[in-house]
Amino acid sequence: MEKEKIELIKFDEVGYFESADAVYAQRAEVEQLADELDREGYSNIWLLGIGGTEFELYQFEYSVKRMSDIDIKVINAADCNMVRPKGLTKDSLVITASASGDTPELVECARNLVADGIRVVAFTKLDGILGGIVTKAIQSGVKTVRGLEFSYVLESFLIYSLIYKKGYFPGYPKFADELKNIFKDLVDIRKVWEPKAENIAKHCWNAPYTIFTGSGALWGETELFAECLLEEMQWVRTRPITSAKFFHGTLELAEPGVPVIIIKGEDEFRKQDNRVEEFCKLINTEYYVLDTQEYKVNVSDEFRPLVVPWIATALLTERLTNWYECFTKHNKNYRRYYRQFKY
Amino acid sequence: MEKEKIELIKFDEVGYFESADAVYAQRAEVEQLADELDREGYSNIWLLGIGGTEFELYQFEYSVKRMSDIDIKVINAADCNMVRPKGLTKDSLVITASASGDTPELVECARNLVADGIRVVAFTKLDGILGGIVTKAIQSGVKTVRGLEFSYVLESFLIYSLIYKKGYFPGYPKFADELKNIFKDLVDIRKVWEPKAENIAKHCWNAPYTIFTGSGALWGETELFAECLLEEMQWVRTRPITSAKFFHGTLELAEPGVPVIIIKGEDEFRKQDNRVEEFCKLINTEYYVLDTQEYKVNVSDEFRPLVVPWIATALLTERLTNWYECFTKHNKNYRRYYRQFKY
Repeated sequence: MEKEKIELIKFDEVGYFESADAVYAQRAEVEQLADELDREGYSNIWLLGIGGTEFELYQFEYSVKRMSDIDIKVINAADCNMVRPKGLTKDSLVITASASGDTPELVECARNLVADGIRVVAFTKLDGILGGIVTKAIQSGVKTVRGLEFSYVLESFLIYSLIYKKGYFPGYPKFADELKNIFKDLVDIRKVWEPKAENIAKHCWNAPYTIFTGSGALWGETELFAECLLEEMQWVRTRPITSAKFFHGTLELAEPGVPVIIIKGEDEFRKQDNRVEEFCKLINTEYYVLDTQEYKVNVSDEFRPLVVPWIATALLTERLTNWYECFTKHNKNYRRYYRQFKY
Repeated sequence: MEKEKIELIKFDEVGYFESADAVYAQRAEVEQLADELDREGYSNIWLLGIGGTEFELYQFEYSVKRMSDIDIKVINAADCNMVRPKGLTKDSLVITASASGDTPELVECARNLVADGIRVVAFTKLDGILGGIVTKAIQSGVKTVRGLEFSYVLESFLIYSLIYKKGYFPGYPKFADELKNIFKDLVDIRKVWEPKAENIAKHCWNAPYTIFTGSGALWGETELFAECLLEEMQWVRTRPITSAKFFHGTLELAEPGVPVIIIKGEDEFRKQDNRVEEFCKLINTEYYVLDTQEYKVNVSDEFRPLVVPWIATALLTERLTNWYECFTKHNKNYRRYYRQFKY
C-alpha cells in the first residue's frame, strides 16, 4: 500500500509506460532478426561495447555462459581496435549498442569489422553514424522516457532468442511473454527503494571517496553505476571493485567517512557479497546494501536470474543517480570534458 | 655514469644479486617440469591467482595469446570457488603462485581442483599449506631479498618452455640464456628511475585520490601497484582504470589536486596510453608518466615485450612503494584488517 503513496522524484510514470509498450511491441521484429541470424549461422558471439554499453552487456555474457555452451564474450571497442581477438572472424556474430550512435571508438571498430566481412548488429538510431555502418541496426522504440531496462528487454529478445534457437533455454517464449508485465514491477520496486536511495545519496554524495562492490551477474551494473553515472555524470570519486578483489587491497581503505556500497545479487557469487557485508559489520564501518532479493517482480522463479540486473539498473542507474543529483546539485547532463571538445 | 652514483634507498644490492643467482640456478629444474607436463599433455592452461598473484599472471596470458594459439586464461581463485569455468577440466593444467602459501581462497580452490583430479602446479613454499596440496610445488630459491621479478623469471621458465615445446616461441632457449644478465639491468634502471620515483611520491602521497591508467601487458602491473601496494600497504586511495575505460567516466575526475599516473607500455595498446597523456596535457592537469621505453635492458629486441612488465614491476612495485613509504611514514608491512583477524 505504502508504495502507492510514494511519488518518485524526477520520474515521468506515464512516459515510462509509453516507452515500455513501444519497446515490447518490437518483440516480433527482433525475434525475426534472431531467426535470420540463426539461419545464417555463427561460430561465436561478441558483445561489443564501450563505457556504459560495455558494462550493460556483461549480464548477457554471464547468463548465456550459465545456460549454454555458446562461446560468448564482451569486448571493449577501443581494445578491439588495438588487438582484434583471434576468435573474432567472418563466422562471428557481433552485437553492439549505442544510444548516441557516434561513440568514436565504437564507430571505428564497427567500420573495421564490417569492412572485414564480419556481421555487426547494433541497437542504435537508424540514421546515426553507427546505424549507417552496421550490417543491421535496430532502433529502440522508446519515447520521451529512456531507460536501460528498455535496452535490456530489446537485447534479451535478440540474445535469448538466439540461445533458444540453438536448443538451450527452452523457456524463452514463456520468458518473453512474462516480460510484457515487468515494467509495472520495475516501477513498483522503485517506490520501495525510494527512501533508501534518498538515504544513501544524502549520506554519501559528499564523501571524499566511495567504495562499490559487486559480483557475478551484477558486476557490470556495479561498474556502470560507479563509472558512467557517478564519475562521469556526478564527478563523484568512486572505487568499484569486485567482491572477490575487495579482500586483497581495497578493504584497507574502509574507515570512518568512506562509505562502502554493496550491490548484492542472487547468483552463485552472492556468498562473496555477503562476505563484504559481514566484514563491514565486523569492523563497524559505514556501509549500505542494495540487495536485489528484497525487490519482487512477477516472473517465474526460473527466469528471475535474468532480470536481477534489470532490478539493479532500475534502482541504481535510474533512481540513485537522480537522488545524488538532488544533493550534489550537479546537473547530470553536464560534463567538463567528455564530448566537450576534441581529445 | 650518473646512475652509478645513485644509492637506492631501502635496497640491498648484494642481497638482490644473491637472490637473482639462486633463482636463475633453478632454470633446469623448472624446464624439466615443463618437459614432464608437456609429455603428459593438456588441453588448456589456467593461471590461478588472487590479489597480487592474479595481477602478476596477466602478463603471461597476454604474451602467450600473442605468441600462440594456446588457450590460456587468468582466473581469480575466489571466483573459481563460486563458479568453475566449463573449460577447466581434468585435461587442464593449472599454474598458480603464493608466497605465503596460505591465502584461504587459493588454498580452497587448489584443494577442490586437485580433489577433482586436475593438475595444479604452484610456485610456493614446499612446506606451506598450498605446497602440501598441489600436484607439484616449486619453491623459489630467493634469499633475504624478495622481488616480483624473481617470480616472473621462474614463471617464465615454466610457461614459456611449455609454449616452446608446443612449437611456438622458437627463441625461448636464447631468451632464457639472455635472462641470466637481466638482473643487473633491473638494478640499473632503478637508479635511472630513482629521482622520478621520489618526485612522484613527494607530490602524490597525500593526494585525496589518485588515478592510475594502464593497458595491454601492463594492466596487471597497474592494478597490482594501485591495489596491492598502495591500497593495501599504504592505505592510499586509488582509482586504477584501463586507458580505454578512462575516457568513459573517470576522465571527469581529473582536476587540480588529483594526480593521474600513466603507466605506459610498448605493446599495441601504447596508443591508448598516449591518448591519456595527450588528454592530461590538453586539460593541463597534474600527471606523471612511467614510460617503460625509457629503460634499457640487454635482451634482444624480439624478447623485449616479455620483460616490459618486469621493468614496470621493478620501478613501481619495488621502488615507488618504498618512496611512498618515506613520505607517508606508514610502514608497508602494517595492515589494519588484512590477515589481522578472522573475517
